[in-house]
Amino acid sequence: MADKWIYAFGGGLTEGSAEMRELLGGKGANLAEMANLDIPVPPGFTITTTCCVDYLRSNEFPVGLWEGVKENMGRLEKAMGAQFGGGDNPLLVSVRSGGLHSMPGMMDTVLNLGLNHETVASLEKKVGNRRFTYDSYRRFINMFGNVVLDMEHSDFETQLTAMKTRRGAENDIDLSADDLAALVKDYEELVITKTGSAFPQDPYEQLRMAVEAVFKSWNNERAVTYRRLYNISNDSGTAVNVQCMVYGNMGDDCGTGVAFSRNPSTGEKALYGEILFNAQGEDVVAGIRTPQPISDLKERMPECFYEFEEICARLEDHYKDMQDMEFTIQNGKLFMLQTRNGKRTAAAAVRIAVEMVSEGLIEKRTAVRRVDADSLDQLLHPAIDVNGDSHILAQGLAASPGAAVGKVVFTANEAVAQAEAGEPVVLVRQETSPEDIMGMNVSQGILTARGGLTSHAAVVARQMGKCCVAGCSALDVRSNEKLFRANGKVVREGEWISLNGNTGDVILGQADLVQPTLAGDFATLMHWADEFRTLGVRANADTVVDSEAALKYGCEGFGLCRTEHMFFEEGRIDHVRAMILAENEKERREALANLLPFQRGDFIGIFNVMKERPVTIRLLDPPLHEFLPKTDEDMEDVAAILKIDVEAVRRATEFHKEQNPMLGHRGCRLVVTFPEICEMQARAIIEAACEVKKKGLNAFPEIMVPLTSGEREWKFNEEIVRRTAARVMEEQGITVRYLVGTMIELPRACLRAGEIAETAEFFSFGTNDLTQMTYGLSRDDAGRFLPDYIGKSLVSRDPFVAVDREGVGEMVEIGIERGRKSRDNLEVGICGEHGGEPSSVEFCHMVKMDYVSCAPYRAPIARLAAAQAAIEHGAYQRVEVH
Amino acid sequence: MADKWIYAFGGGLTEGSAEMRELLGGKGANLAEMANLDIPVPPGFTITTTCCVDYLRSNEFPVGLWEGVKENMGRLEKAMGAQFGGGDNPLLVSVRSGGLHSMPGMMDTVLNLGLNHETVASLEKKVGNRRFTYDSYRRFINMFGNVVLDMEHSDFETQLTAMKTRRGAENDIDLSADDLAALVKDYEELVITKTGSAFPQDPYEQLRMAVEAVFKSWNNERAVTYRRLYNISNDSGTAVNVQCMVYGNMGDDCGTGVAFSRNPSTGEKALYGEILFNAQGEDVVAGIRTPQPISDLKERMPECFYEFEEICARLEDHYKDMQDMEFTIQNGKLFMLQTRNGKRTAAAAVRIAVEMVSEGLIEKRTAVRRVDADSLDQLLHPAIDVNGDSHILAQGLAASPGAAVGKVVFTANEAVAQAEAGEPVVLVRQETSPEDIMGMNVSQGILTARGGLTSHAAVVARQMGKCCVAGCSALDVRSNEKLFRANGKVVREGEWISLNGNTGDVILGQADLVQPTLAGDFATLMHWADEFRTLGVRANADTVVDSEAALKYGCEGFGLCRTEHMFFEEGRIDHVRAMILAENEKERREALANLLPFQRGDFIGIFNVMKERPVTIRLLDPPLHEFLPKTDEDMEDVAAILKIDVEAVRRATEFHKEQNPMLGHRGCRLVVTFPEICEMQARAIIEAACEVKKKGLNAFPEIMVPLTSGEREWKFNEEIVRRTAARVMEEQGITVRYLVGTMIELPRACLRAGEIAETAEFFSFGTNDLTQMTYGLSRDDAGRFLPDYIGKSLVSRDPFVAVDREGVGEMVEIGIERGRKSRDNLEVGICGEHGGEPSSVEFCHMVKMDYVSCAPYRAPIARLAAAQAAIEHGAYQRVEVH
Repeated sequence: MADKWIYAFGGGLTEGSAEMRELLGGKGANLAEMANLDIPVPPGFTITTTCCVDYLRSNEFPVGLWEGVKENMGRLEKAMGAQFGGGDNPLLVSVRSGGLHSMPGMMDTVLNLGLNHETVASLEKKVGNRRFTYDSYRRFINMFGNVVLDMEHSDFETQLTAMKTRRGAENDIDLSADDLAALVKDYEELVITKTGSAFPQDPYEQLRMAVEAVFKSWNNERAVTYRRLYNISNDSGTAVNVQCMVYGNMGDDCGTGVAFSRNPSTGEKALYGEILFNAQGEDVVAGIRTPQPISDLKERMPECFYEFEEICARLEDHYKDMQDMEFTIQNGKLFMLQTRNGKRTAAAAVRIAVEMVSEGLIEKRTAVRRVDADSLDQLLHPAIDVNGDSHILAQGLAASPGAAVGKVVFTANEAVAQAEAGEPVVLVRQETSPEDIMGMNVSQGILTARGGLTSHAAVVARQMGKCCVAGCSALDVRSNEKLFRANGKVVREGEWISLNGNTGDVILGQADLVQPTLAGDFATLMHWADEFRTLGVRANADTVVDSEAALKYGCEGFGLCRTEHMFFEEGRIDHVRAMILAENEKERREALANLLPFQRGDFIGIFNVMKERPVTIRLLDPPLHEFLPKTDEDMEDVAAILKIDVEAVRRATEFHKEQNPMLGHRGCRLVVTFPEICEMQARAIIEAACEVKKKGLNAFPEIMVPLTSGEREWKFNEEIVRRTAARVMEEQGITVRYLVGTMIELPRACLRAGEIAETAEFFSFGTNDLTQMTYGLSRDDAGRFLPDYIGKSLVSRDPFVAVDREGVGEMVEIGIERGRKSRDNLEVGICGEHGGEPSSVEFCHMVKMDYVSCAPYRAPIARLAAAQAAIEHGAYQRVEVH
Repeated sequence: MADKWIYAFGGGLTEGSAEMRELLGGKGANLAEMANLDIPVPPGFTITTTCCVDYLRSNEFPVGLWEGVKENMGRLEKAMGAQFGGGDNPLLVSVRSGGLHSMPGMMDTVLNLGLNHETVASLEKKVGNRRFTYDSYRRFINMFGNVVLDMEHSDFETQLTAMKTRRGAENDIDLSADDLAALVKDYEELVITKTGSAFPQDPYEQLRMAVEAVFKSWNNERAVTYRRLYNISNDSGTAVNVQCMVYGNMGDDCGTGVAFSRNPSTGEKALYGEILFNAQGEDVVAGIRTPQPISDLKERMPECFYEFEEICARLEDHYKDMQDMEFTIQNGKLFMLQTRNGKRTAAAAVRIAVEMVSEGLIEKRTAVRRVDADSLDQLLHPAIDVNGDSHILAQGLAASPGAAVGKVVFTANEAVAQAEAGEPVVLVRQETSPEDIMGMNVSQGILTARGGLTSHAAVVARQMGKCCVAGCSALDVRSNEKLFRANGKVVREGEWISLNGNTGDVILGQADLVQPTLAGDFATLMHWADEFRTLGVRANADTVVDSEAALKYGCEGFGLCRTEHMFFEEGRIDHVRAMILAENEKERREALANLLPFQRGDFIGIFNVMKERPVTIRLLDPPLHEFLPKTDEDMEDVAAILKIDVEAVRRATEFHKEQNPMLGHRGCRLVVTFPEICEMQARAIIEAACEVKKKGLNAFPEIMVPLTSGEREWKFNEEIVRRTAARVMEEQGITVRYLVGTMIELPRACLRAGEIAETAEFFSFGTNDLTQMTYGLSRDDAGRFLPDYIGKSLVSRDPFVAVDREGVGEMVEIGIERGRKSRDNLEVGICGEHGGEPSSVEFCHMVKMDYVSCAPYRAPIARLAAAQAAIEHGAYQRVEVH
């Protein structure tokens, strides 16, 4: 018995359900589910994703598929009382892709399949609408030509435009039935010219070719790019949905639209959508015509509206989530074409999740899981200050919230080029298309002249968390001339504009920004997340200002305070340079003694804010040449300030140069050469702790040795810290609590973790450097070739963004296992930038770390991701070292 | 019951034996063993090494030690009929260190202990030799003052010289008994002046202080340096030997000497040694007086000579090895003071090992184990061409064989400084001392004006495998003036000289050199080694000349052929640059097409020499900027040659610059960006193999992908190679055998080895880079701080010299285990420079690699080390992939 390749839905036989998303794709599973719920869907069937995978492997239809297709077409003929490819009542179908993950605009669709010279005639006779019939046929030829026959859409457009010009028609709708019939002939000629063959007339041949084209489109470049961008596996394949056609373009009692059960931008609980009367669905999604709000349906066809409203409520109740639906009204009858969980902005996701809990629709744990942690980033960034003094150039649709301030660019390529050069850019387009995705991804925001709230630009921008103003019709975009005009003003490439994604304002110049607030639903959700999570969340922070941000964003301490950042400040850098340029230990100690009060003061400031929370302080890490002057002029300045010969400065600068500074004289290696640096820093920390203790504050420094490679080196450093601490406490007559531990950021440290943990009280995995060493990959240099790796799918994700679990992750696991084996209560955290990236946070939970540390403003992301990981993988007991 | 801290020997009670070297040290164990063999040794006792360790930890004598010392002193008093610290027949003892490993000149010795004002009088009365008595006493004060009281030896020397000047005496021997008695008084005053206390008169106090001083000397700087240099553990401690004094300086029927049972320089089977009549042992070792050949003993005291000869034979037969012995003749009676296995040159080691097998004294496996593999280096280097045209400046003793050509330096510090600057140097000294070790280590050779074949310079140079000419009395060395005079010629610092360690010639200028021969005993030993070893030995070699050397030194194939070395040759580099500067793939392919014939020709040449042996060829590895011009002038040249704008060259050079080139765009990463490079190289290799196959030669390339980090990247590269190979073979209609495999040199590759080995046919561990990545340590930059690590004992050995087993070694083990788990017959080798270093070769054997690869001239070292590892750890079956 062959595999079951096909699942029927509607018309009296439904074999699938919502649970079968992997097999039937999201669209197919939901069509089956709607049919099961007795919601009106045009009948059809779904060819499975496994069938697609099989086809892509063997390049031929698997055994039994084609027979199944014919059998199901027979069923549809019976259900509709129609005939595929002939008869008085010709059966027409749509063929659509639909994988496990929705990929808007990525995969291809063919409508009106089954039309040919014969059926077009019978259809005309049947519906009595010649214009509709030929419009359908010309659309079919266009889509089929484009999607299946690999022809250019623009070639068809050119002919359509030519026809309109010939007829003096402004819009498509102004073309008559005969015009369209003539256009069909033009299109058919075009097919012969471009492909060398006539347009296929056999409907089953059309169907076979369309199914194959959908299968193949899984691997088209846009689809691959999209999957790469959203980390979707290349192996799952797409299903194919073959469904009886219904028409929104058969007259004024017809229409087609899309709607959300709640507002996808704000989360407000209200039907939100758009309808185009007398139009086909593709017109909406493509953003070619600007549609009307769905409330217009209520006026024009109240029964349809109320039925639709009722179905929306039922679907939301059924799926327990906000729904994104497509529908068509054919001669007053409502058909649901699709429902799926709707994409939404982070703000909407938070509001919907929280409100659904209070509505009793979902539980807290579901609410916590429902918000994409990374998307919170949108809420943690500034917005345009509406009270600011700004020149509003034009207003469009507030398609995706937030703010964007950048220089105008007109092509995706230019956006990428500018962004690589470090320039913030705003991508301005007539309308966007899937080819623009890379450009959108690097832009601060997107501005389009055409397209509605569900246009490509809007949908993609919301998902990316980018600010987007769409359908700004006042704009006259002239990409070729690298400028746009708006209300009499000309804006050229490279000029600054600002977008307000919350209002739709397009602002000339760089607008003022206001900081986000973290109250309300956001605070509620964060509170729930904190209830669920096991992982602690700390901040990578260096200053008093950072400390305050850390507390505001819910950090429980510092995971990484980089002491060298303090070295660069004015009044200090000269002492640092004097220390480096010292001729002997005595001079070096003098310079360090000058630095001591600054460092001590820094720590007192931080302790005063962080109170009794742990503050992990990393001892000096960067190579010394980072502190030395680079230019001749700077060298002269330094020589003058330090009252030494400029040649001495030059020699020292030359001496400290390194071939591979990443692998050079840095981290605790500096201490092996200059133990007095470590002494000064340990002294500053402990003196600061003693100082605040005098005022009753029991600060808690965790002193961290960077770049440890093995036990002897570790113990050399550790002993200096402990000896210095003991001496300071004796001098002061005060005992303070502190830990001494180390960063684990070299593969060798992971291997030697057992021995290191004999005396190290905590480990903090420095996954930035650990990734560099494990991969042998310089973060500074990888930019030139890592894109080739991602482009050729040789790595799944940039390992500097998300922890490479297979390599770096295993090193971390080895380190934790060996460390904990020799010390039960070893505190383990991570302080690479991965600490604020959700999949890395999940990994940290899976390996049972005690905390992650990240930039303060990413802490809410980490908190939510940690809660999701705990719900997914179960909680555990954290180490208690305090 | 307390530990047993003391083991007696001689005088009727011997508690130790040769097996107890760890506990008693080499000297103590051998004294006990000699006593057990009824060989005349002065009786004494040995305080154990564990006692030293205990003392160094607690800083006090362990319980029971002092009681044991007194008890044993009582035993010695009884055995000698003498009294320690009094009586008519005062007992005097020597106190000497002696650890597990012999450390010449490193540890301290005190002779004549027990003398004080009282005993010096009774001794005078007893021996009736006032001069001898006071000479003994003044020597005792000098040594005790220097070693125990931490006074300067030179202060005593100054007084001795002053006394000689006062008395008009040329040599020490010219001083009268009264002179020496006066000198004793001077010395005693000096002690008070320098230490604030009188010289201790209580013999037990002297003994206690001396034992403590020996214990403490374990940690003196020279000892620590020596151990570091020779990789001796710091933890084993030294034993202390307390032994009754016998005297070689009591008259003309007295003498003292050292001798080897065979010639330690050539290996010739003949007694080899020196004697000083009427002298104390320290005079010989310190090289202060030039001694007479031992054959003189035969003339002056034939009975003693024959007894000594008989003892030598007995000891060699007993220890089955060449012996290095110290003896003293006191009034015609021979006493053996020490025997140990003698240090020898590599040439001697080989000859002795081979001859002892033919003498039936040892087995082949013992012979193979007896030669230090690293020392073979001495035999594999060039010697002075004695037929060359050379100006012989002077002749000294041929103290250590080989040749040295370098610039004259007069201090160890200057030697180190010059060597660091890349200059070859010859260290010229009046005589060397332990302080000079670092300088000797970096010099090409050592030349001394004083001292014999067993002087410090000679012993240390032989062990280091350095050429040494000693006792060149024609030299007038004036270090202060930075020059020496010899036979009317003045040679200044920085001038070139050459040393012939085989003849003792000192040659002006740079002498011609001849290559070593590898025949005779050397060939025999290598043949035996090959019988025992499991590991294959291949060559790191790039050219036809290298190929011939590889075969000469016994390599079984190439383990690493670096194709980029071929890129630098004239006629090629321009094409390489054109390739790098190409604006597009088409131009790049054109440049590569121009390179193809060169690469193909290279491989044909190598295959023709290497025949059917495996030739592992690494595809392009270095970052492209290594091929680009550096200076403005070079850039202009390149622009002119390639007929492009110089600005384009400058831009490209700028573009290719990297922050951390070691972690940059190199290895197979280049291929991901430019697959056509790999295609060209694979094509060149397979075309070459086809070409030679036409002439009946079945070459065997193993194509190696560098810097693989994971399976997808590996497969991307592998597929290009296999696809290209298949295409070439189809074009040529010829099938050739080849393997495709990869270097494993990133920690991640070790972790992902299982997946990589699914299709990789071999692994070659690139332990140079693997060390850099595992340690996060740049080989180019480590020179500035790694010495601090070695100095502070934070690493045992430079990990770039010997494989770091604990870290890098574990990564290798993980890689091998995972690789072999997924592919039974995975061929595994190593091609880092560790492949020619004995302890690393042992490691490779322990992890069951199939081969090591190293520079051709180091192959004999690898072969011998591999044999030793197989004997030590057992043989195993190698993978058969051919």
